[in-house]
Amino acid sequence: MSESRILNAALRGKIMSASDAAAFIKPGDNVGISGFTGSGHPKFVTQALADRIAAATARGENYRVGLLTGASTAPEADGALAKVNGISFRTPYQSDPDCRNHVNAGDCGYVDAHLSHSGQNTAWGHYGKLDVALIEVVAILEDGRLIPSTSVGNNQTYLDVAERVILEVNTAQDMLLEGMHDIYTVGLPPNRKPIPIVAASDRVGEPYLRVDPRKVVAVVETDCADRDTKFTPPDENSKRIAGHILEFLGHEVKKGRIPANLLPLQSGVGNVANAVMIGLNESSYENLTAYTEVLQDGMLDLIRSGKFTCVSSTAVSFSAETTVDFKKNLAEYRKRIILRPQEVSNHPEVIRRLGTISMNGMLEADIYGNVNSTHVLGSKMMNGIGGSGDFARNAYLSIFMTPSVAKNGALSCFVPMVSHVDHTEHDVQVLVSEHGLADLRGLAPRQRAKLIIEKCADPKFRPALTDYLARAEKGANGLHTPHLLGEAYDWHLRALRGESM
Amino acid sequence: MSESRILNAALRGKIMSASDAAAFIKPGDNVGISGFTGSGHPKFVTQALADRIAAATARGENYRVGLLTGASTAPEADGALAKVNGISFRTPYQSDPDCRNHVNAGDCGYVDAHLSHSGQNTAWGHYGKLDVALIEVVAILEDGRLIPSTSVGNNQTYLDVAERVILEVNTAQDMLLEGMHDIYTVGLPPNRKPIPIVAASDRVGEPYLRVDPRKVVAVVETDCADRDTKFTPPDENSKRIAGHILEFLGHEVKKGRIPANLLPLQSGVGNVANAVMIGLNESSYENLTAYTEVLQDGMLDLIRSGKFTCVSSTAVSFSAETTVDFKKNLAEYRKRIILRPQEVSNHPEVIRRLGTISMNGMLEADIYGNVNSTHVLGSKMMNGIGGSGDFARNAYLSIFMTPSVAKNGALSCFVPMVSHVDHTEHDVQVLVSEHGLADLRGLAPRQRAKLIIEKCADPKFRPALTDYLARAEKGANGLHTPHLLGEAYDWHLRALRGESM
Repeated sequence: MSESRILNAALRGKIMSASDAAAFIKPGDNVGISGFTGSGHPKFVTQALADRIAAATARGENYRVGLLTGASTAPEADGALAKVNGISFRTPYQSDPDCRNHVNAGDCGYVDAHLSHSGQNTAWGHYGKLDVALIEVVAILEDGRLIPSTSVGNNQTYLDVAERVILEVNTAQDMLLEGMHDIYTVGLPPNRKPIPIVAASDRVGEPYLRVDPRKVVAVVETDCADRDTKFTPPDENSKRIAGHILEFLGHEVKKGRIPANLLPLQSGVGNVANAVMIGLNESSYENLTAYTEVLQDGMLDLIRSGKFTCVSSTAVSFSAETTVDFKKNLAEYRKRIILRPQEVSNHPEVIRRLGTISMNGMLEADIYGNVNSTHVLGSKMMNGIGGSGDFARNAYLSIFMTPSVAKNGALSCFVPMVSHVDHTEHDVQVLVSEHGLADLRGLAPRQRAKLIIEKCADPKFRPALTDYLARAEKGANGLHTPHLLGEAYDWHLRALRGESM
Repeated sequence: MSESRILNAALRGKIMSASDAAAFIKPGDNVGISGFTGSGHPKFVTQALADRIAAATARGENYRVGLLTGASTAPEADGALAKVNGISFRTPYQSDPDCRNHVNAGDCGYVDAHLSHSGQNTAWGHYGKLDVALIEVVAILEDGRLIPSTSVGNNQTYLDVAERVILEVNTAQDMLLEGMHDIYTVGLPPNRKPIPIVAASDRVGEPYLRVDPRKVVAVVETDCADRDTKFTPPDENSKRIAGHILEFLGHEVKKGRIPANLLPLQSGVGNVANAVMIGLNESSYENLTAYTEVLQDGMLDLIRSGKFTCVSSTAVSFSAETTVDFKKNLAEYRKRIILRPQEVSNHPEVIRRLGTISMNGMLEADIYGNVNSTHVLGSKMMNGIGGSGDFARNAYLSIFMTPSVAKNGALSCFVPMVSHVDHTEHDVQVLVSEHGLADLRGLAPRQRAKLIIEKCADPKFRPALTDYLARAEKGANGLHTPHLLGEAYDWHLRALRGESM
């Protein structure tokens, strides 16, 4: 059955086992793999490589690789390699527990990067030479073109740049995916042209990946499902946050700033994002679109209900349950879903042109509107900035949202000064917690501080934040952005000691 | 003589004195004025308005306005209004000493914004209604179109959005400026199209500003030169910084990453920028271009010498001496200079497409590569972020440069943790001081720290930085980005006390 998926004769001659293919990946190699939010990553060769690394390590040899992806992958890819401490370098995004541990221990060099930057940085050689591209595809056509899988990510760039190519042909992926993708190559300066997308639904490329067949050293047949990205039903706080956002969007429409069908939506992952989607599904909005980087369960519901006329993304990322529905109705869904390279889904050019409404989660914000998306207490890497910066800087509306407290109320997500900045005050327009929404547009720092404390902070922490602000304004450093540098991080230091902030 | 500059009959009927025109600006009005880096700002009506404000204040009345510009202006505009404390709100950039004092005292609400954002934010109404546009032009054509002055900035947006318009026709500006400008309107979502610029020299609009003549309430004739933006010859440290940058660019060409004529240059203002331009002028590079926001003395030298085939900018900003040469040879210079709206000169779409080489100054950087461009000791606003973020995020090369120390060596410009973040580690690729250049591309935080300390920090401060890093790595917060939050700002606290860092 799988034979029929590899129609190109030359590439059919390269079929081999995952462990034979993994032998093409040498110690010290940089490997660019497919995979974005647990979809479309290689499933077998990465595990075979992990076995090779474990065996070499047992022999006392040093066998580690640099790992470049689209974004997060899954236990079979990041997970397997991190478990054997086989990743010496990692970019641009990860969320695997073992990988995270090695990153934080400092023995995996992690370059957390804007997703729109990662492809071009690889092509320019900023991460060194790319030795191997390891890409999951759905099938190989007779002429050698490749049907992309459930994510596009940096696949075309890695195929173009890598010295050697290994393809995984995954029969667990549905052949009906053919035609869903839109592969457009941005290229490098000085030869770049305008990306001609003026609506989320525009197709500007072709539905196939291309590879120089002479570079393909191995083709591996696999049959393995994507990650089961569990869907968590929204809790009360998420519903409240979503409610504030939906009310605010209604207000923007009423003001005439955005059309009645809004502007293309971009949404991060998780509980709150799901709640917003559910809210939109129950709303009176029609003919919505999304220009986003990942299409999850909540958004698929809106395609099913007809609310979304089109979702442009670089990956799908579903629960096992939704995957069943997705496959069953793929012929229909395919008409409303476009999967693009992440350099296009996250390109500042297109995002600013379309003017997305961007909603992203965060770890903490400070009273002046700076946002920390990545570093717990200023030092521990959680996952990475992902595409949040690509969208926040260029969106029509840049919204960051979080419950007001964490760790059962011990930690405030609104603090005097964030312990790491991923999104500066210049790029954060709206902050939301379950308590309310702070519209920061057009406000100077002191005004922002008062509004954030009043609208977003938990009542338990409001007096201390107000007190900090008042004393900072009176202090020697009480100027444009008043701060008490001697105690700006006392909140985090208390948390580091295991106390309440 | 000036009569001939106002060819439109209807608008000729609106000629009046500056003080009569200023009466159209009411207390509480938002006024969008022309002006960018001391060029093309209104010279008379702002001063007349300041007089009105002073008189009203003396009568105990509250007469203040919101002031929106392109960027910094001059003593006749920002300066005059700030002196009488007449500015209640200010955006997107200022550098006037009196204005800065009011910003830091907290009695002028300052929204420091990316220059590419300021026009669209105004059009969307994020700063409230724009009551008046006050725009300097060179002349008014018979059909009512306007010859723009020495800066374009947000002029077309302000003319489009404002309820009332006041024009200053400045006979001190040369009529030969006609044809130098390229006015292209980006518009608002969902109706935006690709900006068809694929080279710095592309013209995509028309050379005139347009205004609805029914909105024009006053035309004022002026005859006053732009600000004399003094040219400071580079000192030794600036020459060393420039030397490191030029050597690095040569290396990039050799690696084949950029063409032999480089990529379009963007350069901030000041001593170091001048040194780089002088270095380029003495180099063997040919057929250079610039895609930048301000064209200064140093860049004009490169046009004169033939090194630059084209400079695209939104403003010129010259010393009095260079202005003489500029006017004398305007017919020639006009062939190689394009002045665009700042929404285009600073647009992420075009900057990423062209892949600029961007060089900007800063106040301080930390050992992990975060950059503070705006806030002295975390609180005092210096000028603003200007266009540095538009370029740094989207450039091919994002370079930030500073002498290693300030205040005669008392302060280190490389610190454990910056006291304010304008450019995050994700957007800073290269740091340079007189001691050396740190190429941070592809490096994880701990690697960046070691390199920045070794290459950029002053030897006097290196041991303390190394010690901080070593102890941070061993501490409870010694994870992905090691920090000692309890002492991260000790350096700044010492400076606040007037001690050496």
